[in-house]
Amino acid sequence: MTETAVRRGRPGYDQAGILEVAVAAFNEFGYDATSMGVLAARLGLSKSAIYHHVASKDELLELALGQALDGLEGVLLEEAASTGDAAERLAHVLRGAVRVLTDKLPYVTLLLRVRGNTEVERRALARRRAFDRAVAALVVEARDEGSLRADVDPGVATRLLFGMINSIVEWYRPGGAEGADQLAEDVLTVAFDGLRV
Amino acid sequence: MTETAVRRGRPGYDQAGILEVAVAAFNEFGYDATSMGVLAARLGLSKSAIYHHVASKDELLELALGQALDGLEGVLLEEAASTGDAAERLAHVLRGAVRVLTDKLPYVTLLLRVRGNTEVERRALARRRAFDRAVAALVVEARDEGSLRADVDPGVATRLLFGMINSIVEWYRPGGAEGADQLAEDVLTVAFDGLRV
Repeated sequence: MTETAVRRGRPGYDQAGILEVAVAAFNEFGYDATSMGVLAARLGLSKSAIYHHVASKDELLELALGQALDGLEGVLLEEAASTGDAAERLAHVLRGAVRVLTDKLPYVTLLLRVRGNTEVERRALARRRAFDRAVAALVVEARDEGSLRADVDPGVATRLLFGMINSIVEWYRPGGAEGADQLAEDVLTVAFDGLRV
Repeated sequence: MTETAVRRGRPGYDQAGILEVAVAAFNEFGYDATSMGVLAARLGLSKSAIYHHVASKDELLELALGQALDGLEGVLLEEAASTGDAAERLAHVLRGAVRVLTDKLPYVTLLLRVRGNTEVERRALARRRAFDRAVAALVVEARDEGSLRADVDPGVATRLLFGMINSIVEWYRPGGAEGADQLAEDVLTVAFDGLRV
């Protein structure tokens, strides 16, 4: 994109602003059902104005999924994800995953609906699976060090943990009664200690 | 439907058999995208042969969702769901919900995708919400009797429990490494006691 092209974008929408509106539309109507024409109408821009910011609808999807995936992968790169015993690192990663989910709610919602229909979707799924595998490895390590119970299969435990965390996109609303930090603590409490007194 | 009409149905498919094939197609292609013509092709029947068994595609959906909902509501009617302390009743209902999910996997999968686009879907959603409310009430009661911790909001706890249980449709396969009974025990273990040793 040339500088002239960038300047021609209507004031009020940079790429991030277009992405936000696009992701809301993808989540509402589905990616396939959302045409660039629909997006242009929602933005009050011409299609060509959108093309000053992104090359294609596919690129919008890739950027949107990247927001979620960069966030999740970033958690694994934090120092607390690689120091301390495995149970502490796992706790840090689960807390971080909830934080990414609540901070980037529409982007993670979109990510969780991806089924691998296009090359962009398949790359995103591969990155999501790599994240899941990293968490699964932490669960195994925490069991092997004796921090987590051995009578629940680590693969099943990992899936139940993600089931709990990912379901948050179905009902969490920013500014609601339950804050994001409290929610992350609740997830850790249930996951590690259970609900029983 | 007249007796003659029933007899005209091709041997090998009764209503339950048609329903099974229909639900698989609804889950694969989506309800809207699955026409009666597609179903007829899959069944190797004429459309009119299908109409000997069900009045409409809408009725197929209603019957399919009923399979899942009757199962879940049935759990609430079992004696162990109304005897003992609230934590025991809750454990029974959660175990029963996992059992219905694994026994009726395609039907529950379909139920969990319903968004309320038609009258049949809205009635199903209303029944699903009533089931969820019954479980939420048990969580509150168990907390009030002192069996469940008071530092996790019962509404959040209920949502996390359903998140864990409902996510099972994403990966559980009958005959896989983890049997249905073991899975139900694992869910109860995580929910009540947590993964920490």
